[in-house]
Amino acid sequence: MISVSEARKLIDENCKGGRSEVLRLIDALDRALSDDVVSPIDTPPFHQSAVDGYAFSFKDWDGKSKLEVAGEVQAGNVFTAEIKPRQAIRIFTGAPVPAGLDTVVMQEKVEVQGDQMTIKDTLLVAGANVRLQGSQTKIGDVVLKKSHRLTPASISFLASLGITEVPVFAHPHIRIIVTGKELVAPGGIIHEGQIFESNSFALKTALKAMGISPVSVEIVEDDEALIMEAITRALDSDIVILTGGASVGLYDLVPSSLAKCGVKEIFHKVKQKPGKPFYFGTYGDVLVFALPGNPAAVLSCFYEYITPAIGKFTGRQYHKRLKMILAHDFQRKPGLTQFMKGKTKANTVFILDHQESYLMNSFAHADALVELEEDREVILKGDLVNVLMILF
Amino acid sequence: MISVSEARKLIDENCKGGRSEVLRLIDALDRALSDDVVSPIDTPPFHQSAVDGYAFSFKDWDGKSKLEVAGEVQAGNVFTAEIKPRQAIRIFTGAPVPAGLDTVVMQEKVEVQGDQMTIKDTLLVAGANVRLQGSQTKIGDVVLKKSHRLTPASISFLASLGITEVPVFAHPHIRIIVTGKELVAPGGIIHEGQIFESNSFALKTALKAMGISPVSVEIVEDDEALIMEAITRALDSDIVILTGGASVGLYDLVPSSLAKCGVKEIFHKVKQKPGKPFYFGTYGDVLVFALPGNPAAVLSCFYEYITPAIGKFTGRQYHKRLKMILAHDFQRKPGLTQFMKGKTKANTVFILDHQESYLMNSFAHADALVELEEDREVILKGDLVNVLMILF
Repeated sequence: MISVSEARKLIDENCKGGRSEVLRLIDALDRALSDDVVSPIDTPPFHQSAVDGYAFSFKDWDGKSKLEVAGEVQAGNVFTAEIKPRQAIRIFTGAPVPAGLDTVVMQEKVEVQGDQMTIKDTLLVAGANVRLQGSQTKIGDVVLKKSHRLTPASISFLASLGITEVPVFAHPHIRIIVTGKELVAPGGIIHEGQIFESNSFALKTALKAMGISPVSVEIVEDDEALIMEAITRALDSDIVILTGGASVGLYDLVPSSLAKCGVKEIFHKVKQKPGKPFYFGTYGDVLVFALPGNPAAVLSCFYEYITPAIGKFTGRQYHKRLKMILAHDFQRKPGLTQFMKGKTKANTVFILDHQESYLMNSFAHADALVELEEDREVILKGDLVNVLMILF
Repeated sequence: MISVSEARKLIDENCKGGRSEVLRLIDALDRALSDDVVSPIDTPPFHQSAVDGYAFSFKDWDGKSKLEVAGEVQAGNVFTAEIKPRQAIRIFTGAPVPAGLDTVVMQEKVEVQGDQMTIKDTLLVAGANVRLQGSQTKIGDVVLKKSHRLTPASISFLASLGITEVPVFAHPHIRIIVTGKELVAPGGIIHEGQIFESNSFALKTALKAMGISPVSVEIVEDDEALIMEAITRALDSDIVILTGGASVGLYDLVPSSLAKCGVKEIFHKVKQKPGKPFYFGTYGDVLVFALPGNPAAVLSCFYEYITPAIGKFTGRQYHKRLKMILAHDFQRKPGLTQFMKGKTKANTVFILDHQESYLMNSFAHADALVELEEDREVILKGDLVNVLMILF
């Protein structure tokens, strides 16, 4: 049995990472750029008024004389007529400052009588209230670097440069295989010995929270031939996730079926709770994760191991790892690394009740997993613990 | 001009909140329950073995004698044959413990010769390794309360109870109207005086990050008749968001158009930067937000005011408000509440450069908005500041 840190290292080493694809900008939310993005234009694309006011030439003004208001320019328009010295142009926010002019005085700081304007702004300096062409981006500038995560603000920023498509890391193709002859789909009727299938719900929604849809989800009985067929169908993807039958019991058919399908075992069993029977293998570049069937083990392993592997494809870190203050004393039997359902409040974390791997009622209220390392037995209120934040 | 806190209060008071709807469980990720959810079954639905081992009756065993292995039961099966005293049944994880038996010994802690089994577990107690029926939920229990946010774990939990549909708060219907004659859609060509339209990108993706699609997005010229037509079309929704033309200039046609369409102004102009011209009105129960056209003002107002209003419909809090340590000294002119683009690192926050309302390059790198209250002028490194986390 290997340690959690060895398991993490082995998965990381075997994950080659991602492909690129080009997406429409509007569809690229939360993707990481797979290349630098360069500005195709200056922004602002012209000298732009920052206020409603009057544009004039500062150097042609003596600091006291009235100026004649000789025209107006609104955002979206251009003022093209000739402008004489001592003339000013009424201008509105966002409008281009007419050629030859360089300064805008705010409308609140002038007096206008007929077409004569007196400037009442003693602090006015040359260039005031003008956003210079190229003051945000210059044509050819790298404006966002490879690996940048596209937020609503960055998408708005790129749109303002006229960009319509972006190169991003692609989502991996993921196939899910849920095994277990005791499983009945919710909505059906369970007879003695049967339970409702819930792991496909956990995995599909955990992927959905990352913006990913699995390519397929199959529910398969505990039958070696059927499991092998499902595995064979799934090996055209980037990541295969199986649940159930992962241990070493008589009816734990998944590891042996994977071996017969040519999947190379990298490790099987990790010194952790829940999820001790966790299996990881490869088939060429395909990553194969076999998780135990207990629901809490499935989600723990997904968040701790599979999410970071997906992040290697997509160039993203989905969940923050933080150190937080434990809000209460806690004692447990040491020996295994334990991932415990936790609830955070500011910079403290509480370990919830009902931690057994078959129970989901505490997981339903958790926003974090608290990691207690193998040897850690007594943790006192106020001690720091490692926390993985699982809610976005 | 009103203060930021008055603006927040007025929006909150005018927002009646949400409707309920019933969604398929698998589609309900991140929704808040609009009612308590009750368990339709006991879980586990039967006494279930927690391990691979041997089930027997503890009280019928003398603590030393061998037991006869009289059969086996796998997960998904039921053992129905009669079991005599001093008989044990081979059992696998998840299988129902046969009637009359109450304890399971792990397979690692027995010796088996032929059909005779010797128990080598001196610490074994009655009921060991059995998950009792109803130990997680009992039929009729409230398992998740109204307002609970459905995470992957809670959806998995409800699926394990056989639940297929859930009552949740509905998303509001939102219509977006972008105004400005200077705007050209990205992909087009900008001529002198024109800029690329980006606010629809900001609003659509900020909504998408909350799982919401706007009902419509219209781009309209600065023309009162056209703006009024667009407003009239939009007033069948729950929330109308307009950008541009919100100030008091000659070509700021939005507030007057809203008045002519019967929208009641609740406030116009807030002591804040960016977003001073921010307008809020109502039309019956419809909330109408008119934002200035500058991209940074649009997103700041969206995160500070519109997101919490949407949260009143959906029963969710989308962004955490935290107190964080400022990582550097900062000085500014007091008078307005300022929302500054910030980047967090653990419990500290940095105020980014390029804060002007027309600039998006800093917003593209921000994960937080730092709120500096009206009178706050000098903030020292190490001082606490209010922070709104804007990235999930």
